[in-house]
Amino acid sequence: MAQNVYDRPDFFKRYSQFPRSIHGLAGAPEWPEIRSMLPKLAGLRVADLGCGYGWFCRWARENGAASVLGLDLSEKMLARARAMTSDDGVTYSIADLEHLNIPIASFDLVYSSLAFHYVEDAARLFASIYKSLVPGGHLVFTTEHPIFMASLNPGWRTADDGHRLWPVDHYFVEGERKTDWLTSGVIKYHRTMATTLTSLQKAGFRIEQVKEFCPTTDQVAADPLLQEEIDRPTFLLIAAQK
Amino acid sequence: MAQNVYDRPDFFKRYSQFPRSIHGLAGAPEWPEIRSMLPKLAGLRVADLGCGYGWFCRWARENGAASVLGLDLSEKMLARARAMTSDDGVTYSIADLEHLNIPIASFDLVYSSLAFHYVEDAARLFASIYKSLVPGGHLVFTTEHPIFMASLNPGWRTADDGHRLWPVDHYFVEGERKTDWLTSGVIKYHRTMATTLTSLQKAGFRIEQVKEFCPTTDQVAADPLLQEEIDRPTFLLIAAQK
Repeated sequence: MAQNVYDRPDFFKRYSQFPRSIHGLAGAPEWPEIRSMLPKLAGLRVADLGCGYGWFCRWARENGAASVLGLDLSEKMLARARAMTSDDGVTYSIADLEHLNIPIASFDLVYSSLAFHYVEDAARLFASIYKSLVPGGHLVFTTEHPIFMASLNPGWRTADDGHRLWPVDHYFVEGERKTDWLTSGVIKYHRTMATTLTSLQKAGFRIEQVKEFCPTTDQVAADPLLQEEIDRPTFLLIAAQK
Repeated sequence: MAQNVYDRPDFFKRYSQFPRSIHGLAGAPEWPEIRSMLPKLAGLRVADLGCGYGWFCRWARENGAASVLGLDLSEKMLARARAMTSDDGVTYSIADLEHLNIPIASFDLVYSSLAFHYVEDAARLFASIYKSLVPGGHLVFTTEHPIFMASLNPGWRTADDGHRLWPVDHYFVEGERKTDWLTSGVIKYHRTMATTLTSLQKAGFRIEQVKEFCPTTDQVAADPLLQEEIDRPTFLLIAAQK
């Protein structure tokens, strides 16, 4: 079973104070880019893997989705998602993406935001998603970028000239990465760029779009902390089709 | 016009002492992987962009290619390629990949090894290659990896724990990178992973395979210097189809 840090009180409390937890999609700087990679939602049956508070589920329904299934490992996240949702077209259910077992040929779009890097077995995950989609169905997701993930000791360093640099090491040593992010010992799984793309193709997907989140000038002006995102990519954004 | 460092005497002399210059394809550790990405060569009309000494051109003919056109910016490289080739099926010609103008629908395979990072305008390059291929034709190439290229000041650093790390900075600042490699002021052009893949797709290509060169255990045993390739990728390998 995938590690569930979201139900730890300390993690949940800190996570709930994040801009993306308070402001939803508008609080996530990569949202405009991932939104631009989505198909038109009118009439689509949608699944959201790692739905959290359900921001995307509700947005999808407001934008015409026929139905949305939100899946998450965290009871606390789902409880808050349910409390924030008054729409019979949205259903929430607990699920472990590591052992995902969703109905066959039931969805037109599978979406996921920043959840797949918690999953160890990407081949199994992509195969399950592929089966759950109808022919022509879409998978659109964000995940942590391998440049962000690779190092055993991530974090900005200062070069001799004073500029910050991001370390890359152990790039080809895939697997578990333990970091302290909001709580201690958060377990994520590093995969190379080639492994992610090849795993999608082996599952049967055609790669439609590969993007890396880079903030716009306006975003950096509004939130100067985003300046460091110019120096190294944090988020990988992928659209694939069955 | 793209910078031509290969014709500088100091560069040429040093380059000619490289394993891949002396031993050809067998001296390039990424060769087995890029070879596995090639289509069957029997009967194919092939172009090699940045052919250097013509090692690949001759190999392609020995493996059944109908004809091979080797293009390079360096007169010195082409002179040596011609001196090493006795095969009317191989033709060499001088060409600047920055302003490539090759015949339309003339090739079944365009190959390139470690030349595209010298080209500033990837969109123009990929569009020219696309036009030069027959429908169903293949583009298979290696280029320096964006992780290897991004930093304004590349080179291994030593972390506090003694492990080496590779710096990433200015990842989203694409364009010129000046490094001292065999000679001073070698100009290369950094592009993000997303830009390379998106440019190929915009030119009309379908992405078939994306790989990153990682040496095998046997390769590292034979050449311990390759161990550092585990820590960060140097070469990006791509196969695309028209």
